[in-house]
Amino acid sequence: MENEVRKDYLLNRYVIIAAERAKRPTDFVVKAAERYVDKDCSFCPGNERLTPPADLVYLPKDGNITKEKDSDGLRHKGWVVRCFANLYPALSPHTKEVTLQNSKLHVKREAYGFHEIVVESPNHTEHPNVARLRQLGLMFDACLDLLKEFYNNESIEYAQIFRNHRKEAGASLSHAHTQIIAMPMIPRIISDEIEGSNQYYEKEGECIYCRIIDDEGKGPHLIYEGKDFLIVAPWASVHPFEFWILPKRHEPDLLGVTDSEKIDFVKTLRISLGGLAKLLNDPPYNYGFHIAPKSNKENEFYHWHLEVYPKLSIWAGFELSTGIYINGTPPEMAAESLREPIKKEMDSLTI
Amino acid sequence: MENEVRKDYLLNRYVIIAAERAKRPTDFVVKAAERYVDKDCSFCPGNERLTPPADLVYLPKDGNITKEKDSDGLRHKGWVVRCFANLYPALSPHTKEVTLQNSKLHVKREAYGFHEIVVESPNHTEHPNVARLRQLGLMFDACLDLLKEFYNNESIEYAQIFRNHRKEAGASLSHAHTQIIAMPMIPRIISDEIEGSNQYYEKEGECIYCRIIDDEGKGPHLIYEGKDFLIVAPWASVHPFEFWILPKRHEPDLLGVTDSEKIDFVKTLRISLGGLAKLLNDPPYNYGFHIAPKSNKENEFYHWHLEVYPKLSIWAGFELSTGIYINGTPPEMAAESLREPIKKEMDSLTI
Repeated sequence: MENEVRKDYLLNRYVIIAAERAKRPTDFVVKAAERYVDKDCSFCPGNERLTPPADLVYLPKDGNITKEKDSDGLRHKGWVVRCFANLYPALSPHTKEVTLQNSKLHVKREAYGFHEIVVESPNHTEHPNVARLRQLGLMFDACLDLLKEFYNNESIEYAQIFRNHRKEAGASLSHAHTQIIAMPMIPRIISDEIEGSNQYYEKEGECIYCRIIDDEGKGPHLIYEGKDFLIVAPWASVHPFEFWILPKRHEPDLLGVTDSEKIDFVKTLRISLGGLAKLLNDPPYNYGFHIAPKSNKENEFYHWHLEVYPKLSIWAGFELSTGIYINGTPPEMAAESLREPIKKEMDSLTI
Repeated sequence: MENEVRKDYLLNRYVIIAAERAKRPTDFVVKAAERYVDKDCSFCPGNERLTPPADLVYLPKDGNITKEKDSDGLRHKGWVVRCFANLYPALSPHTKEVTLQNSKLHVKREAYGFHEIVVESPNHTEHPNVARLRQLGLMFDACLDLLKEFYNNESIEYAQIFRNHRKEAGASLSHAHTQIIAMPMIPRIISDEIEGSNQYYEKEGECIYCRIIDDEGKGPHLIYEGKDFLIVAPWASVHPFEFWILPKRHEPDLLGVTDSEKIDFVKTLRISLGGLAKLLNDPPYNYGFHIAPKSNKENEFYHWHLEVYPKLSIWAGFELSTGIYINGTPPEMAAESLREPIKKEMDSLTI
């Protein structure tokens, strides 16, 4: 196969698929993650005083989950999920107003927002690739609870839910955790996707993601098809072994996910990250939810999904200067490599 | 200082300047680069047969430089700069035509172009931070020669000249080298900059880069002012210790640089990278020239410059999902830290 330049489904983003020296899974040497449990991990049970008071804790009680908050004086114990403000927030509700512009060249706004940590499990190493399904479900529920709260704040327009796995992908602590940054603006990539999906709808009369699901669902980019979700290696993958989890039902808003979809999403997340970890020796990765912003007048043709980016290559001078990316692993090859390990994860779940 | 959200001078790009936990130079632990000289370095003199024939070699002759090409049978020896096609090119002139679109979702084009290596010196470790000025001048001349040749090719629209320093920044070989990728399209970041500079001109009646030079030339973002160039830490720096080298004279086209500017540019490059290396223990970095594309009807308000990005942080799930960046080193602090070491480099040059 020759090298090709591919355009993203909807973004004005080009990727050079470097197929001539295509990198198979065995070409990536991923060192084993450091497996030790930090003795003074501030996310571990017993160390709740090392973090700000929790904004949300899930406490098991009589077979159910009750939801509580810490106060300055009180730190709840025995939690199964725990959420609190990042000690070093990128955006914070405690910002002073700043002058919006001090010259034609210098435009700024206050760093207002929320930056929340979701500790996914009391078990330090219960990452999604090995987590119990029930635990993953609680983690996902907590993200949705926070999202709902942020979207109730009149100043917040978007909340980015994301995860950094391993130090090489930017995780400064190894305890399993997710982050949410809620902000008063719609980030560029999301607004570009919404614009692109609106344009596609105007032209073709359908949601582009629904079209992706139809087309890729029967082609070489399909990795796995479950009840409510598809795992797909996208046509113009920027990252080696990149994959997306797409809900089959058209739904812009993550808060619109049904109970039955929740269960299937968590399963799909578990097997996809499990398969990735098996294939590539638990590689570093980042993932981010792509969801409709709060004001949903313009968003009806958007379609929420999750994008997972294994961190196996370096963006160098070319990528940083041009915005054109070079991906050494064609997505068709990524899909072929990921299919078997992900199917095995599914099989082992259902035994 | 509080965190701030800043907008780029002209791009629709936002950066959270995380000033509250601002990272000073001493917060970055940069491990010393591996200093060994590869015995079988294919870029070193004597190993010319390990690379494709040179498209351009500079040979010293009677105190002058003559320019030659290798052929399949001949590899010139005694060169001072040597340029040849990358063995694993991202884009190549030997592509077959591909179908431009195979469905509404799948748009692609042939990976046509050129991907050239410029070996900057016969000395393995003569990187720009320590290079002799004359040698750096030859390297720059060779880049301009290649650029001219590419822009004479009717299919080529843009040539990205870039450099990756150290393995952590994507350099697969440690011999001092630059790369050029010439392509039949204008990359997104450059076309966005051109659009932004046109819009600024329409509104304000001047080149935005000339305005940047005027304004930042007397403010806290100035690092160094030389005869023909300024070194500036830009207002919305994406990378810690990012700096730009800007020519004072308005000129869109890198091929329009004068002989006197060439000499001063090479000096500015030498002292800026020398100062950076002294300040941060020779950190990995990428740089890229931002220049006018070939068809220059639309480009008269563009202004060529060089952007240098030290690689000291990781873009994680937040950055990759949103296109919003977090920079832990305010550019005012970067400028303050870089001023002294760069001035010292200048002083030691002129002794």
